[in-house]
Amino acid sequence: MDITQFVELSLGRWNSQRSAHHLAFRHFEQVTSTIDIIPLAVEDSEVINLCKSYNIDPHEAAHPFRMSWEGDSDWDEAETFQGTTILVPIPNPDNLSAGRLLRDRGYAETIPSIGKYQIQEDGTFVLLTEYERAAAEERIWFVNPNFRMRVSLIKTSEGSGVVTASFSSEIRSRAN
Amino acid sequence: MDITQFVELSLGRWNSQRSAHHLAFRHFEQVTSTIDIIPLAVEDSEVINLCKSYNIDPHEAAHPFRMSWEGDSDWDEAETFQGTTILVPIPNPDNLSAGRLLRDRGYAETIPSIGKYQIQEDGTFVLLTEYERAAAEERIWFVNPNFRMRVSLIKTSEGSGVVTASFSSEIRSRAN
Repeated sequence: MDITQFVELSLGRWNSQRSAHHLAFRHFEQVTSTIDIIPLAVEDSEVINLCKSYNIDPHEAAHPFRMSWEGDSDWDEAETFQGTTILVPIPNPDNLSAGRLLRDRGYAETIPSIGKYQIQEDGTFVLLTEYERAAAEERIWFVNPNFRMRVSLIKTSEGSGVVTASFSSEIRSRAN
Repeated sequence: MDITQFVELSLGRWNSQRSAHHLAFRHFEQVTSTIDIIPLAVEDSEVINLCKSYNIDPHEAAHPFRMSWEGDSDWDEAETFQGTTILVPIPNPDNLSAGRLLRDRGYAETIPSIGKYQIQEDGTFVLLTEYERAAAEERIWFVNPNFRMRVSLIKTSEGSGVVTASFSSEIRSRAN
């Protein structure tokens, strides 16, 4: 599996059930959301601007996409939340299964981020992102084309302590 | 990583937080438990009997162990649950990273089971077990020696539909 196939499989609408384990407190958080993943053109101005903000030649971008979500958490029952982010893969020139991933809004922190991805032999997409005070590790794999799993860990920046582990089951509700 | 290292890393006591996603109903179940994993001798009579019940030569067994658990689920708040099972790896003769796993009480069904395991290059232990009316896929990996993750899927026996997906974060509370 390379980044082309991975992004193509991801496109569409997903119904997501997410459980977060806040480990220090043995607290459980439950989130249900709808996630939309739509392709963007490489010549999209937002894609080009994100590349430029990292001094990366926009011609290196492959299969950029937008991810938007809307949902409810039992953490704060009064609120629904929503958000959107642009993701731009920059594959390594010699290896489409690994590279960098630019994001205009990170997972652990709501600031732009740049992570390193690698697609393993079994098809699992692994993304490592380092922030100033934390590190995030995300694994995404497809059980079948209509069901994907996502495991995310938020670690201390030293990388040893895991603060939060979360798990999403995502069922496709609409093809791209 | 081979089965010897995997079992050695697993020995000890673990505090487990588990979330199950019952997908048809988008229901969340939360479980906290304590898990003890202790080594057994290959000449233990229960190990020998389990091998014999599958017509397997007990000399093929490697690093058998007992797993016991005790915990609470929010599915039935009045009850605590507990259980214990014996697990006996039967590595392939030519490859310690793959083989069969005998269990005197299965994960999806409380009957003896025999599954196929494979330890991937990144150290993830993957176990596939087929039951009469269901199939289970379990993935276990160590983020560090004191923190392991476990993802289990219960599928229909045809293997395509996922019925339940569950996720455990397990923190070591005591070395073996």
